Amino acid sequence: MVYESKHLVIIGGVAAGMKAAAKARRESPTMKITVVTDEEYISYAGCGMPYFIGDIIKDSKKLLVREPPYFKSMHNIDVLTRHQATAIDTKSKQVKVKNLENGQDLAFNYDKLIIATGAQPIIPPLPGISLGNIFTLRTINDAVKIKSFVDSGKVTNAVIVGGGLIGLEMAENLVLRGIKVTVVELLDQILPPLDKDMAQIVQNHLSEKGVEVVTSDGVKSFEGEGGSYVTKVITGKRQLPADMVILSIGIKPNTKLAQDAGIEIGATRAIKVNDRMETNIPDIYAVGDCAESIHLVTGKPAWIALGSTAAKMGRVAAINATGGIDTFKGVLGTLIVKVFDMNIGKAGLSEREAIKEGFKIESTIVPASDVAHYYPGAKDIIIKLIADVPTRKLLGAEIVGTGVVDKRIDIIATALTFGATVDQVSKLDLAYAPPYAMSMDAVIVAANVLGNKLSGKTVGVLPQRVAEKRDRGEDFILLDVRTEMEYQSGHIKGSQHIPLDKLASRVHELNKSKEIITYCRAGLRAAQAYRILKNAGISNVKYMDGSILAWTYGLEK
Amino acid sequence: MVYESKHLVIIGGVAAGMKAAAKARRESPTMKITVVTDEEYISYAGCGMPYFIGDIIKDSKKLLVREPPYFKSMHNIDVLTRHQATAIDTKSKQVKVKNLENGQDLAFNYDKLIIATGAQPIIPPLPGISLGNIFTLRTINDAVKIKSFVDSGKVTNAVIVGGGLIGLEMAENLVLRGIKVTVVELLDQILPPLDKDMAQIVQNHLSEKGVEVVTSDGVKSFEGEGGSYVTKVITGKRQLPADMVILSIGIKPNTKLAQDAGIEIGATRAIKVNDRMETNIPDIYAVGDCAESIHLVTGKPAWIALGSTAAKMGRVAAINATGGIDTFKGVLGTLIVKVFDMNIGKAGLSEREAIKEGFKIESTIVPASDVAHYYPGAKDIIIKLIADVPTRKLLGAEIVGTGVVDKRIDIIATALTFGATVDQVSKLDLAYAPPYAMSMDAVIVAANVLGNKLSGKTVGVLPQRVAEKRDRGEDFILLDVRTEMEYQSGHIKGSQHIPLDKLASRVHELNKSKEIITYCRAGLRAAQAYRILKNAGISNVKYMDGSILAWTYGLEK
Repeated sequence: MVYESKHLVIIGGVAAGMKAAAKARRESPTMKITVVTDEEYISYAGCGMPYFIGDIIKDSKKLLVREPPYFKSMHNIDVLTRHQATAIDTKSKQVKVKNLENGQDLAFNYDKLIIATGAQPIIPPLPGISLGNIFTLRTINDAVKIKSFVDSGKVTNAVIVGGGLIGLEMAENLVLRGIKVTVVELLDQILPPLDKDMAQIVQNHLSEKGVEVVTSDGVKSFEGEGGSYVTKVITGKRQLPADMVILSIGIKPNTKLAQDAGIEIGATRAIKVNDRMETNIPDIYAVGDCAESIHLVTGKPAWIALGSTAAKMGRVAAINATGGIDTFKGVLGTLIVKVFDMNIGKAGLSEREAIKEGFKIESTIVPASDVAHYYPGAKDIIIKLIADVPTRKLLGAEIVGTGVVDKRIDIIATALTFGATVDQVSKLDLAYAPPYAMSMDAVIVAANVLGNKLSGKTVGVLPQRVAEKRDRGEDFILLDVRTEMEYQSGHIKGSQHIPLDKLASRVHELNKSKEIITYCRAGLRAAQAYRILKNAGISNVKYMDGSILAWTYGLEK
Repeated sequence: MVYESKHLVIIGGVAAGMKAAAKARRESPTMKITVVTDEEYISYAGCGMPYFIGDIIKDSKKLLVREPPYFKSMHNIDVLTRHQATAIDTKSKQVKVKNLENGQDLAFNYDKLIIATGAQPIIPPLPGISLGNIFTLRTINDAVKIKSFVDSGKVTNAVIVGGGLIGLEMAENLVLRGIKVTVVELLDQILPPLDKDMAQIVQNHLSEKGVEVVTSDGVKSFEGEGGSYVTKVITGKRQLPADMVILSIGIKPNTKLAQDAGIEIGATRAIKVNDRMETNIPDIYAVGDCAESIHLVTGKPAWIALGSTAAKMGRVAAINATGGIDTFKGVLGTLIVKVFDMNIGKAGLSEREAIKEGFKIESTIVPASDVAHYYPGAKDIIIKLIADVPTRKLLGAEIVGTGVVDKRIDIIATALTFGATVDQVSKLDLAYAPPYAMSMDAVIVAANVLGNKLSGKTVGVLPQRVAEKRDRGEDFILLDVRTEMEYQSGHIKGSQHIPLDKLASRVHELNKSKEIITYCRAGLRAAQAYRILKNAGISNVKYMDGSILAWTYGLEK
């Protein structure tokens, strides 16, 4: 072993830091390993905290993976909690540390240093921000505080500031605790990593579950009774009663320590590292939420702080810091989140992101059954796929629905890793039996639909584009080709109705001088209708991708 | 359109045939399309039939996707049921057809011909094989017959001959109907595509569910009361009472029609096709269960009849037969099957298959939680990964367990499609949130374990190898490093016990002249113990992959 009796110091004791420590010990039985963290707890499952608050996970101990004595006795790793690293002297290879319990100053010489300082919630400097019962959720202590307050039974109304992943997980878990929840989001959509059309499906689901979602509105101040506890959230357009507030507008990487030591910060404001997790300073690595990564679709720097990435980075840094070689090539922005009965996932680029990156894109939205349609419990999922037109390579996917989403996201993430084309995805030999998938899995169906659009075999238009055309007052025919019963149960305002099986014989009823956009329930019959009209010699025709299932702008009867 | 007014004839009306017909119509609005099938029903969901018999799917109509009038009115496709193709004249491009209802002989000229004649159950020529209540399950009529007989309430004992996928699905569904089921398998394991060690885990689960599983025993004859209905199955070693028998020893491709016409048959005895699904005769394609494919891992011909492959092949043939270009590169032998509470899946090669193909392989078995271990409902899955030593490429995976298996199989299948190494799999940016996965997904954990073995960082030995060593009477120490309580609850016979946290201080208790194999519950502590012993200077040490969770040879208290 190369580094016997050498000293590895790790700053940070949660996901990336402790993973690095444990892996370093497995790689090197004799290296001295010290972890310093300013926190009281280490190695906890931060991502489980919303479910602890929601009482889905009953005991906070379940979130504590390991404690310091375990690391000492089992792995001979020294873990110093409540010890804050205050400075790194990269010349003398020393970390200055303050014992937060007694104020004592310490210093550790290192041979190798891994920085895993994580990230912290962004707290906007708004009037009233320091009132009581305004919480952030980042550490176990945060979670315990929020849980205790909810347990007290004093919370009737909660306002969640920020409609990202943590905000929505908290919305669900507070509703489970009987609290009336309002989510306030400054942008014009929740879930900013998703396209607005897909996010709107989730927003409608939140509304169905009783969560009030306010978009395009920002918090201006917090007001409190007697000036001590928050009672009201003042936004640009509203006054919202609030017994508690969860601030979840975002996080920022903890980079001050690194920056002060002359370690290079990347374009994303996280610590710049190469694929061995090395910073610009020899023998110093950075991992986890404080470290930058590369987006595997764009090849550009990306900062996407997730526990899954932290664990992989920690492992790679540990191998390199103990004399081995391993690389971490990057991320895909893969995400999954449960919001009530809905599963929401993404991998790669959204349509908006892809366009911003300069790709010439084609996209589709395809609803499909998660298992064989005849198998009990089959549920719909709605898949949006985005591809690069010149290469037919997949760029990303967003999937929402009550059915199984995570499986399809992982298939897409794996395909994106290898630069798969839409055509390759459509031929994947995925596992098929009725309890698990349709004979052509939902992602294969979606890839085929997108392939047809890429080849110009069909011309589809996304529901959002149709709504925009309508809002602009454009003159076009929206043709509903569902059955009479389906049409009566709710249709898009202003649509014309001809059932698919009558369409060929009733084509003459259509005003051929206008653009025609067909729709049905899920898009399949709309595409069939598209072909019937094309074959009837009508040229200016499109079908609506995803149709009613992806239409979030209301129906009339 | 190139083929307007030309005639596409398709022989076969189930998955591949009807998919080809529907897709051909979408590609060519005017081509004449005729489907002939000797069956009464078309376009049915054959894979759902066991669940129809088990009353999970209540109505056989649910399995009928579409009927002939639908194809005529919606797609202008002529579907002739109960019409058997009797000969293909490839010179004059004509298919001879017999109307099975009235015996009339017909002939259809074709411009393009797609053969989708499917496969049929193998029926061994055993004494008593033609007795009543001996069934095969291939068509809707088969399913309706079996269901009716089960519904009659006359079935107490059923014998299933063949322990493959259909056999086990039928075992579950007959047990659900209150029937005592015995599965008889000639091989020394059920589920022949799997390795024996993984199949044994499933076999134990079947036993727990009350299914008697008999392996290494073949049926010799069937006996019947009064010579009309089966009452007994006579095997090499047993006499089994049987009110009904399901024959599911395998299927064979229906190739006689093709072969008689001079169409080339491949090494697998299915119809040989290229990646455009073309046979050796111009303008004739073959798709679905009668067609051969290429195994994407070996590059060699493979015949793996599955509905998912049939649909993709049908689509590709339709595109090519209508003047387009599409290719189907091959399959991975991906499978998934539900057997009671257990999900069983495979993609790529088993260890046995990989060795037979001449690969120098390394493998591991890794149990892991399907979702975050602290999230309610977390369940174990057991993953076996097989890799090629020189290239570190993944060759295959088998996964069994009560947790989510299909997702991980599909990840592996996608990775195998692109020739992924174990290291690439271990870095996949898979979707992580507590309800869906561990922060490092189970497949990533398994890939890391296999990576360590490939790099020689650890030396693991599969439970099956340990059992074989023991059976050969080899002298070695089996070291249980679990807690006292775990050890007392059941351990491997003859094992020595030192809890992991005491191991470093009690190394002297071990006889260092013997080979030592460590084990725990799932393999993680066994690997830690392995490292402790290595660091203590003991060289002849290994750990048992998967440990107790993958040990199927019984425990003692």
